[in-house]
Amino acid sequence: MEFEIEKQEIERLLSLSDHDQLEVLLENWSPQDLAMLIQDLEPADQAMIFSAVDREQAYETFELLDLNDQVVLIGVLRNRQLQLILNDMSADNRTALLEQLETDQLNKLLTLLTQKERRVALSLLGYPEDSIGRLMTPDYVTVKSNWTVREALDHIRKVGEKSETLDVIYIVDDTGYLIDDIRLGEILLAEDNTLIHDILDGSFSSLLVTDDEEVAVRAFSNTTRVAMPVTDAGGLLLGIITVDDILELAKKEDTEDIQKLGAVEALEDPYMDVGIMEMLRKRAPWLVVLFVGELFTASAMGFFEHEIAKAVVLALFIPLIVSSGGNSGSQASTLIIRALALGEIKISDWWRIMKRELITGLMLGLILGFLGFARVGAWNFFTDMYGEHWFAIGSTIGFSLMFVVLWGSVMGSMMPLLLKHLGADPATSSAPFIATLVDVTGLLIYFSIAAVLLKGSLL
Amino acid sequence: MEFEIEKQEIERLLSLSDHDQLEVLLENWSPQDLAMLIQDLEPADQAMIFSAVDREQAYETFELLDLNDQVVLIGVLRNRQLQLILNDMSADNRTALLEQLETDQLNKLLTLLTQKERRVALSLLGYPEDSIGRLMTPDYVTVKSNWTVREALDHIRKVGEKSETLDVIYIVDDTGYLIDDIRLGEILLAEDNTLIHDILDGSFSSLLVTDDEEVAVRAFSNTTRVAMPVTDAGGLLLGIITVDDILELAKKEDTEDIQKLGAVEALEDPYMDVGIMEMLRKRAPWLVVLFVGELFTASAMGFFEHEIAKAVVLALFIPLIVSSGGNSGSQASTLIIRALALGEIKISDWWRIMKRELITGLMLGLILGFLGFARVGAWNFFTDMYGEHWFAIGSTIGFSLMFVVLWGSVMGSMMPLLLKHLGADPATSSAPFIATLVDVTGLLIYFSIAAVLLKGSLL
Repeated sequence: MEFEIEKQEIERLLSLSDHDQLEVLLENWSPQDLAMLIQDLEPADQAMIFSAVDREQAYETFELLDLNDQVVLIGVLRNRQLQLILNDMSADNRTALLEQLETDQLNKLLTLLTQKERRVALSLLGYPEDSIGRLMTPDYVTVKSNWTVREALDHIRKVGEKSETLDVIYIVDDTGYLIDDIRLGEILLAEDNTLIHDILDGSFSSLLVTDDEEVAVRAFSNTTRVAMPVTDAGGLLLGIITVDDILELAKKEDTEDIQKLGAVEALEDPYMDVGIMEMLRKRAPWLVVLFVGELFTASAMGFFEHEIAKAVVLALFIPLIVSSGGNSGSQASTLIIRALALGEIKISDWWRIMKRELITGLMLGLILGFLGFARVGAWNFFTDMYGEHWFAIGSTIGFSLMFVVLWGSVMGSMMPLLLKHLGADPATSSAPFIATLVDVTGLLIYFSIAAVLLKGSLL
Repeated sequence: MEFEIEKQEIERLLSLSDHDQLEVLLENWSPQDLAMLIQDLEPADQAMIFSAVDREQAYETFELLDLNDQVVLIGVLRNRQLQLILNDMSADNRTALLEQLETDQLNKLLTLLTQKERRVALSLLGYPEDSIGRLMTPDYVTVKSNWTVREALDHIRKVGEKSETLDVIYIVDDTGYLIDDIRLGEILLAEDNTLIHDILDGSFSSLLVTDDEEVAVRAFSNTTRVAMPVTDAGGLLLGIITVDDILELAKKEDTEDIQKLGAVEALEDPYMDVGIMEMLRKRAPWLVVLFVGELFTASAMGFFEHEIAKAVVLALFIPLIVSSGGNSGSQASTLIIRALALGEIKISDWWRIMKRELITGLMLGLILGFLGFARVGAWNFFTDMYGEHWFAIGSTIGFSLMFVVLWGSVMGSMMPLLLKHLGADPATSSAPFIATLVDVTGLLIYFSIAAVLLKGSLL
């Protein structure tokens, strides 16, 4: 509430361009509140806010903004302001921003950086996209193992200001190779004259600079460290990754997976920020692919046109049967895709998974098959709508449901594994994708069973 | 590779129960490696490993294990070992474990805790499940604002050993109310005689102990802190939450959402650890609900039985048309559900979303409608299978696709918002759920359009 009142006052001052009053009012605002305030403002007003806050507020607030907002701000901030913010902000966040820019804009920004920061920026941009190299920051503290605790603490006090975290301190040899990491707490708690070497536990986990981002997310889930060191293949310490960046990354990865599960190409921006044309580009291709797949249902049914003409009642149950197969397939594929993403299962587990899904699918199929048969029987009891052949029709519906649901479970669980085996993203086998596959095959199952059970009666 | 070789050696020693050799071999293992090793062993062997490692390795390894493995281990570890681990491990991880236990097992474990740790455990268990209170740890360091930097550092050195993080230090008044937080780095960098009060920035973000876990995930996404303080409504500092717990939580929440999107009740355990009966309980109810919904398609088509008998060709396109509507609905609902979960959109945005989806849905509908018409025209050109009425049939398919896809986009985007408005979980409006809704209404759209366009010709 208080925030809302102050916000109105600030909007009033912005409309008056009252820079001095803004400065007074914003003096004690936290970067979080400033970022929230700025999100809803026009770019010109955003720039005015940045000119009214102090240097530390400025870069901390800037870092909290969405990448899109950052890119827009770059266009409206004065060069001097931009320079301070870019040099102050942490190297990993800056790399994420620079990645978004066109070449000429990127080059302009690089000239604003100090020589040291420019070297850092260029080196981080040199790593492949989506690699751990892009995420790491060179702002950490290293000590030598032959220093005393006192020497180490003095060093930390001298160089620690720009470190992303002081929670973990890194021990390197004279040529920069990583020997160990240690929590600052453990250094602080030791006696002044103890050698660092004597308080090391000799065990550390590190990431490779060329590893994929997913590896980093997985690694952090298995540790209680707030930061992990990144080395090259030889063990040279290149940077560190902090867990707060990993949290963002984990959310981004899950968002991509979820969107793929809904048969949408992963959006690069929040839903509301995606233009209509971009939205069409992300949705239309998949819809068309699924449509083309679904065209086969019309072809498949073409083969049974004669049967449908003879027994129109068969047509009535088509959506029920194919969608039940699609639904059981969606369940299985969703479970398998997520288990793969979490590293709970591997491709080599396929036979164990198949056995589980055969049993589960059969039982689910029995349940729905029974319900389908009961539905026909019950309707017939009250309305006699299926006449003398009700039992044959009910059996056809029941057995079809059973086999289609079983088939859906097996297809749904095996397709993600097959895709992964082929090097594709398992999340591509989304619920609609599986449903389309099962629709075509489900119709074949249905009409084959009908051909057997209704032969001589309806067909 | 090396890990694999050592693992074989360890398995050999385990089979010989060679405790002394195990102790030597495991001396320098990191908790991460130990946890990986233990995951694949039988409980009795796991217990032997725990008896062969030192006290620090033991609790750090234990903390890294899955909750299920922890529960199993409780049954096989000797009381003395269990006591050390439980008292050493961090309070938030311990709470997560205690939550899993039956009452009598819980009471037994509580007696193993020291008086101080028992008080901590009981107080954490007192907060509602899924609340921030359960996640927080009381292991943090507070200082007073009227202390000097030297006094603060001395205090941190004295009490910091058990703190979850020393990255952030909390400043409280004499009665324990939170005044501010500050990074240890900032304290370290200040002069010895500076008052803490003078290096505070007067701004901090904190969480309420009664807030939902989701609030914590959202809050951490908007900060660069590795820990956040938790207070009661009055501002009394009760504990802190560290970002590594939040990472786990974020993954857990996304897993639940993804499973719901696949029309499965959220699993409590990894896919492979869920028993078949439990799996049926998570999947059968939704399949049955969707089946009952799909039954309406049979009823709806019952009304059009007469039309189908006259124009069997209509039946052939039923799966194509209803599934296209379902697919566009899946796309829309998935995007909206994720945007809601990320806080990108609010219920009050519904009209803006509706406008976007009306435009997108109409354009997607036009694309598929055109393709559908073209399919009929092309087939007819080559095979003359639709005869003189091909244009009317093609138009029926085309217009039906257009309206059904538009309808799917609107339903798919509005249902999650409606569910949230009603206090339900938006993720419940999964792809299969939307597809079922659109199937029934899609048939009505299809046959209504057919009734108009084919009247006097086929119908």
